[in-house]
Amino acid sequence: MKKIVVIGGGTGNFSVLKGLKNCQVDLSAIVSMADDGGSTGILRDELGVLPPGDVRQCIVALSNSSRLMRSLMNYRFENGGLGGHSFGNLLLSALEKVTGSFEKAVEEVGKIMAIRGKVIPVTTHQTRLRMILKNYKILEGEKEIYLSKEIDQGYHSIYLEPYPQANKEALSEILNADVVILGPGGLHTSLIPNLLVEGIVESILQTQAKKIFISNLMNRKGQTTDFSVSHYIQELVKFIGKDVFDFIIVNKEKPPKELIDIYAEEGKLVENDLVDSRVIEADLLGVIAKPVGSDLIKRNLIRHDPYKLAQELMYIVNHL
Amino acid sequence: MKKIVVIGGGTGNFSVLKGLKNCQVDLSAIVSMADDGGSTGILRDELGVLPPGDVRQCIVALSNSSRLMRSLMNYRFENGGLGGHSFGNLLLSALEKVTGSFEKAVEEVGKIMAIRGKVIPVTTHQTRLRMILKNYKILEGEKEIYLSKEIDQGYHSIYLEPYPQANKEALSEILNADVVILGPGGLHTSLIPNLLVEGIVESILQTQAKKIFISNLMNRKGQTTDFSVSHYIQELVKFIGKDVFDFIIVNKEKPPKELIDIYAEEGKLVENDLVDSRVIEADLLGVIAKPVGSDLIKRNLIRHDPYKLAQELMYIVNHL
Repeated sequence: MKKIVVIGGGTGNFSVLKGLKNCQVDLSAIVSMADDGGSTGILRDELGVLPPGDVRQCIVALSNSSRLMRSLMNYRFENGGLGGHSFGNLLLSALEKVTGSFEKAVEEVGKIMAIRGKVIPVTTHQTRLRMILKNYKILEGEKEIYLSKEIDQGYHSIYLEPYPQANKEALSEILNADVVILGPGGLHTSLIPNLLVEGIVESILQTQAKKIFISNLMNRKGQTTDFSVSHYIQELVKFIGKDVFDFIIVNKEKPPKELIDIYAEEGKLVENDLVDSRVIEADLLGVIAKPVGSDLIKRNLIRHDPYKLAQELMYIVNHL
Repeated sequence: MKKIVVIGGGTGNFSVLKGLKNCQVDLSAIVSMADDGGSTGILRDELGVLPPGDVRQCIVALSNSSRLMRSLMNYRFENGGLGGHSFGNLLLSALEKVTGSFEKAVEEVGKIMAIRGKVIPVTTHQTRLRMILKNYKILEGEKEIYLSKEIDQGYHSIYLEPYPQANKEALSEILNADVVILGPGGLHTSLIPNLLVEGIVESILQTQAKKIFISNLMNRKGQTTDFSVSHYIQELVKFIGKDVFDFIIVNKEKPPKELIDIYAEEGKLVENDLVDSRVIEADLLGVIAKPVGSDLIKRNLIRHDPYKLAQELMYIVNHL
């Protein structure tokens, strides 16, 4: 069975993991540990735990447990002192406290949720993401970076403070992989934060695995405003040191104009400007979710279809 | 297999359930729904859920899952908005929200925790305990009653508001039982609140089951200050309408004087004043827990041994 390692975190690689979990592959998700917003941020500040939010999402994506258990993991309390916390985050944080180990907590929740594959925090050290913009403004933490509209004006540096060593398991997974997948996901908030961990880039350069980049569907206004596929690659290459990608998967299906209009505030579609034998263009859009509330409109209307994505990925895997 | 129904809630019947879960019996715990203190009280107020705390304790007592899972259920968050909440309470409340049913939530947590037997809320209606003292002071809620030091001055009435119908399953369990066990547990905060639910007393009077009362080890100062075993029986008979007990289990083992001194603030030992063929006296004290922090000193130093208690109960069950 081929070993596939997906590097990311957050909602970005949910579709990749959900699609691949039903395929005959040995699957691992390496997850960014830079999140500090929302429920996760409060738990980090108040309990001193590692950030559970991205791990939770990957576990739900890989879960074969009941719909009820998956709903429970994503359930958000609405009122009082618990308001805004997702239950799965509390589960991970409580288990981290009880076991004294975030990795052990992730392993236990993986069992409870009957996941296919493994979820591996990219590091188990406490660290915060920081970005110094061209105008020398400092963005402290992933949440501030996520909300910034000035990143497309350029930045001097982005780094993790303190500089964290990678989880050894993450390194060995990459080194032993047949395929390493990067993206889709927030460029500065999910993809790059993994590359900033000590040892990750070295492993990516060293591994014999084929490397696949899956392009985002949408840009983020004020951050990757007019990015085409080649801009994403260039940006990642700055951190990896060279263009390592063997395949670049790009969606070519156009979403209905009404949806693009709804997204106008958020950003435009990512256009493909690469004429390159590595590029695989395919229709990859998911069924349009019914808009219920503004949250869903922004998060879920234009998204990858897990099964279409898995089909393209498995085509590559089966032809290795 | 004989059917045993334990009526109570709170820490009181933890030892009974823990002892009986390894015996060859069909075991059910009927649990008071009057708790409104601590984490449970906050969840009731902020989320509008049914009280999870007593149910959680019974589930842990009956659980055959790992030590880790049991520690997780009882884990209390220490800081911030989550401070004081036990994880198990949050699990029950989140599942109640996700499923729309407290009973369903209890069932699911029972599965997750691999419990032996069933845990049945005495009612699934929202209700609050209220007590009107002899001096016409009104105690609102179980917590106020639990903390009062004036109850031994006498009271006019204790009732649930609104008057709740019993959970049908609780009634059928009592009616179909071979043995019904009442106690140990807080007289006004765990035992009587079950008897105040519409239909429970009728079922106790109607069932062919043998009824066993297990006497508390310690009195509660200001509440049952100088109660002997016969006072407990008299008090329960006021609510049941007649003395239904076939067996009365009483501890005759004396705790070391140092422990009695530690408890002096809380209350004195319950003495047996009954000369009655129904009384079974036995050495029932548990191993003395190492005092770690004031909480444990007060809660756990003088307690029933689950296995000694189960031995006495199974002797009765096997001779029915």
